[in-house]
Amino acid sequence: MRKSLSVLIVMGSDSDFPMISPALKILKKFDIPFEVKVCSAHRTPEDATKLAKNARKSGVGVIIAAAGLAAHLPGVLAAHTTLPVIGVPISGGALNGVDALYAIVQMPKGIPVAAVAIDGAVNAALLAIQILSLNNRLLGTKMTDYKTEMAEEVRGKDRALQEKLKEI
Amino acid sequence: MRKSLSVLIVMGSDSDFPMISPALKILKKFDIPFEVKVCSAHRTPEDATKLAKNARKSGVGVIIAAAGLAAHLPGVLAAHTTLPVIGVPISGGALNGVDALYAIVQMPKGIPVAAVAIDGAVNAALLAIQILSLNNRLLGTKMTDYKTEMAEEVRGKDRALQEKLKEI
Amino acid sequence: MRKSLSVLIVMGSDSDFPMISPALKILKKFDIPFEVKVCSAHRTPEDATKLAKNARKSGVGVIIAAAGLAAHLPGVLAAHTTLPVIGVPISGGALNGVDALYAIVQMPKGIPVAAVAIDGAVNAALLAIQILSLNNRLLGTKMTDYKTEMAEEVRGKDRALQEKLKEI
Amino acid sequence: MRKSLSVLIVMGSDSDFPMISPALKILKKFDIPFEVKVCSAHRTPEDATKLAKNARKSGVGVIIAAAGLAAHLPGVLAAHTTLPVIGVPISGGALNGVDALYAIVQMPKGIPVAAVAIDGAVNAALLAIQILSLNNRLLGTKMTDYKTEMAEEVRGKDRALQEKLKEI
Amino acid sequence: MRKSLSVLIVMGSDSDFPMISPALKILKKFDIPFEVKVCSAHRTPEDATKLAKNARKSGVGVIIAAAGLAAHLPGVLAAHTTLPVIGVPISGGALNGVDALYAIVQMPKGIPVAAVAIDGAVNAALLAIQILSLNNRLLGTKMTDYKTEMAEEVRGKDRALQEKLKEI
Amino acid sequence: MRKSLSVLIVMGSDSDFPMISPALKILKKFDIPFEVKVCSAHRTPEDATKLAKNARKSGVGVIIAAAGLAAHLPGVLAAHTTLPVIGVPISGGALNGVDALYAIVQMPKGIPVAAVAIDGAVNAALLAIQILSLNNRLLGTKMTDYKTEMAEEVRGKDRALQEKLKEI
Amino acid sequence: MRKSLSVLIVMGSDSDFPMISPALKILKKFDIPFEVKVCSAHRTPEDATKLAKNARKSGVGVIIAAAGLAAHLPGVLAAHTTLPVIGVPISGGALNGVDALYAIVQMPKGIPVAAVAIDGAVNAALLAIQILSLNNRLLGTKMTDYKTEMAEEVRGKDRALQEKLKEI
Amino acid sequence: MRKSLSVLIVMGSDSDFPMISPALKILKKFDIPFEVKVCSAHRTPEDATKLAKNARKSGVGVIIAAAGLAAHLPGVLAAHTTLPVIGVPISGGALNGVDALYAIVQMPKGIPVAAVAIDGAVNAALLAIQILSLNNRLLGTKMTDYKTEMAEEVRGKDRALQEKLKEI
Repeated sequence: MRKSLSVLIVMGSDSDFPMISPALKILKKFDIPFEVKVCSAHRTPEDATKLAKNARKSGVGVIIAAAGLAAHLPGVLAAHTTLPVIGVPISGGALNGVDALYAIVQMPKGIPVAAVAIDGAVNAALLAIQILSLNNRLLGTKMTDYKTEMAEEVRGKDRALQEKLKEI
Repeated sequence: MRKSLSVLIVMGSDSDFPMISPALKILKKFDIPFEVKVCSAHRTPEDATKLAKNARKSGVGVIIAAAGLAAHLPGVLAAHTTLPVIGVPISGGALNGVDALYAIVQMPKGIPVAAVAIDGAVNAALLAIQILSLNNRLLGTKMTDYKTEMAEEVRGKDRALQEKLKEI
Repeated sequence: MRKSLSVLIVMGSDSDFPMISPALKILKKFDIPFEVKVCSAHRTPEDATKLAKNARKSGVGVIIAAAGLAAHLPGVLAAHTTLPVIGVPISGGALNGVDALYAIVQMPKGIPVAAVAIDGAVNAALLAIQILSLNNRLLGTKMTDYKTEMAEEVRGKDRALQEKLKEI
Repeated sequence: MRKSLSVLIVMGSDSDFPMISPALKILKKFDIPFEVKVCSAHRTPEDATKLAKNARKSGVGVIIAAAGLAAHLPGVLAAHTTLPVIGVPISGGALNGVDALYAIVQMPKGIPVAAVAIDGAVNAALLAIQILSLNNRLLGTKMTDYKTEMAEEVRGKDRALQEKLKEI
Repeated sequence: MRKSLSVLIVMGSDSDFPMISPALKILKKFDIPFEVKVCSAHRTPEDATKLAKNARKSGVGVIIAAAGLAAHLPGVLAAHTTLPVIGVPISGGALNGVDALYAIVQMPKGIPVAAVAIDGAVNAALLAIQILSLNNRLLGTKMTDYKTEMAEEVRGKDRALQEKLKEI
Repeated sequence: MRKSLSVLIVMGSDSDFPMISPALKILKKFDIPFEVKVCSAHRTPEDATKLAKNARKSGVGVIIAAAGLAAHLPGVLAAHTTLPVIGVPISGGALNGVDALYAIVQMPKGIPVAAVAIDGAVNAALLAIQILSLNNRLLGTKMTDYKTEMAEEVRGKDRALQEKLKEI
Repeated sequence: MRKSLSVLIVMGSDSDFPMISPALKILKKFDIPFEVKVCSAHRTPEDATKLAKNARKSGVGVIIAAAGLAAHLPGVLAAHTTLPVIGVPISGGALNGVDALYAIVQMPKGIPVAAVAIDGAVNAALLAIQILSLNNRLLGTKMTDYKTEMAEEVRGKDRALQEKLKEI
Repeated sequence: MRKSLSVLIVMGSDSDFPMISPALKILKKFDIPFEVKVCSAHRTPEDATKLAKNARKSGVGVIIAAAGLAAHLPGVLAAHTTLPVIGVPISGGALNGVDALYAIVQMPKGIPVAAVAIDGAVNAALLAIQILSLNNRLLGTKMTDYKTEMAEEVRGKDRALQEKLKEI
């Protein structure tokens, strides 16, 4: 079994960290190595280009890019790599993330970005793990366990609700 | 180098085939084995469940699911597999694909779907290839070549435009 | 007069309970037996399938399913039953329920879901009662009384306003 | 087994008939008695009121109301009956049915309307049949058969696709 | 000079009173007689019908109707009168008034409603006064004065800003 | 009985004439004098200002202004008159009239515009007539007749449909 | 090197000052002379016209106009000048600035307005400076320095994040 | 008087040429030198970077960038230059240009793009000329003449309409 590739997480602004933070917990839970960078498609375009260009040879398997407003960051990174890039639209601003969603998901033919839900950083991490699991049987098994846990959690909440309803 | 995993493409309706067809050409160009199925999350839910559950053990690496309107198919497949699922919202109907986009991209925490652009089947195929390239160095090289070809195509169009402008 | 069929209420998450709670009061007021379940289309898809498949033979007449974001739950339940399914889109998230509304109301031909307003759990309960009233004359009478009460309430508010306006 | 209640279909304009027509075929297939009326919430408000008020005693079990633009018809009928009212938003006009959808689905607390998809007349008919099936075991059985037919149709289309793909 | 006709203001719910209140001040400022009623298109449809039918003969010149969500009230009143009806969409609910705006402004051919901005009760009052001014020269003069006052207010704010900027 | 005031119709572009044309028929049917002008808020702003400023003293009672895209024309006219201004948003362009609707209906406090439906020129004419009817009892009577005609037309269509249904 | 032209900033309401304030800081940082005016397209239309007409001869190079709701101000100013006009849509109201954005950006052919992001006053100032820099080499150099500073700020935030991540 | 700076027009795809073409006519009419390039932010990102970086020193005064879908091109160019960049959102695709509009106009703080209307290439050219006119008095005069011509054209259309109306 080969060592897992790492995940590179790029945020357009450090103010996005609280939204990204639960995604890091997921990556840790699955023992996925990761790096987090603040880098702007517009304010530091050369740094963004370099990050994307060097990612594959640095052992990165998946790039996650989170950005708000006219969220060009995921597309700009995707333009400079052949790695899968997952885009996380961030809510905020007057359009509350619809702008970011469209700017991420509506990529033109040739340069795909994988969009997840607005503020869906946790799902971005899970998607990255599913991608890496193709390379790593253990990750597949762990993901199956994770889904079983989630199902048990839902069932636990149902049981708690049944108790609560009896009391009413 | 391991044999490439295959791509499973699921359409909610056979009327979506023309939109899917260029994606199949991309997969062929990259020598990716694939299977295409018509299967509905609502009309044949058990078949959808089986497809998703059996995918990984059948050698599938990535599932692409295309659906319109209240496009539940990608999410329903994702609920039954730990493979990455790419969702392609299909335009059509009075809301012209915004409904499908939201129903695909706004998946709740725990079960990710990777959304591409409305009618973006070609990008779904390219994303699948990028995912499979983590497992297959040759695919990475081919993808780099493909991007170079695309760039040359753009440059060729620019040269043609310059000629055209001279004539005006 | 036959015993009323029951109403099965399914929530995608227990956090939706406060929104559902006033609907339960309506069902109690009309003496409709009901059951409330937490069950996720994506995290516990098999449980959801079972709930829907067994509903009719368990004496359920109407299913109410409430979900937010890419709200697949009502459609997934509808795929597995021939009972009427009422979907309640839940607000929240960056799109504030438009995503849930579209994912519920835009069901493709063949598998209907009856959508009510975003966060419209009370109307879902009233609709369920109207449906059950076809089977149960007493419910029809009670519903007529309920509408008369509502009208009186509006008229009471108008009288209070007239008093208030005199004082100004 | 009791005789099935009938379905009353009300259109805001006779130009909506082609969209309604396939729904009538569904009702015929299930042997549901029905009546179709052209009646406007705004141009013939008294007629609309009468239709709704007399529906239950005329043996109607479900009202289906289709309207476009500021589609008040379903809500206006619902205000005058305790029968379940299904609203079908009709596309057309500059907003292409989003206006009709919102005007139908966003009913205030107290007076529910069951919205189906924009132009979803067939689903409105199927929903009406599901509602009437609570009262009529035969309808339940027929609906199960109908769903099996639909599933077979999807599977047939998949088989046809597999043949087509072999030829390519 | 004839006595001014009155304005009838109808609210779908008494909770809308704070939004309506500044409009009443405008009517008072212009010495326009008015009446305010709580009346629901759906919960008290007969009362709404009566209000509209009797308005002209009671000396009403303009009806202002304010409603939220699937805001049918202005259209329902307009169906029963030949007086001009001004509709005020009220914000609130998950769609924040876009639903009310569409349900008011998109009236089908034949029965007009004059829509003003979401929560634009003051403008509804001013529009009513402009309408009544056709009948009443004094009102026209007062409205001209009011516009001059508004202009002076803006100029006063500009002067205050200039002072403030000097201090910075 | 006083002579009816006239209606001034202003179009932002002569290409809007076909949409305006049925409104002129309505005005003729009711014997309302009218004038139609092509005038742009942006390309001929001084002309627009003059039209609005002179309207009242020229015997105009109501201004109807139709415009598309960033439809400023109705608001600009309203800024220069105390007459009621009815705005007709025109569809067309990539946003198909939503831009025009918002630019017309969302007028700030102080300067109202009465918005009708997108492309709703006929309703604008009817609204103008309703406004003028306050001043002119005959117009009120004619409007009542017109509404009766419309109702009869709907009933005629219903009878035709009943015949058609018998034949099927 | 010629003296820089000035920037004229016009706000529809003095309540917009806090949003405009950071833009003034930018102009000061670049030593650009500016004037700020409160002026309404609808309440003081003549003042708006005069401001625009006199701007060029008063040494103004760029006009920035900020407005919310049916934001006609930038377009009205643009109608009366040949200077570049930058429009800043302001959030607020039930539509939260989408109305203002459409009313500003969708200007018809012939009279352009340069729209920036909703509440994007700072970018309006930077755009004005970029425009003025064509006339003034020093401004170009300062703008390059400003972009370098912004890039360093992003890099500083990245370094701070790396430290923070080590501590976790 | 200095020689006018040139305009650089960049299109994401050569299929956008017909939409751009009328803008070139405007530039020619005003004797503005221009260059047109096909260049993609995603398929030829290095070429885009170079174009932007070299623009100022090549005598470019304004960049116009037209793109559809997730229209990153204007923002990507703006990241690499201190020249004013005008973005033209192009309609097309399922969202018909709303995606392009948001991706262009909602630029984050620090890197402005001047957005014009969807498909508003002519206005982009006029805005570029207005910008260049600050540097070139003759252009200002020509622009004033152009606006006079436009006004005359509107007045001519009004006269034609008056003739047409007489004939009806």
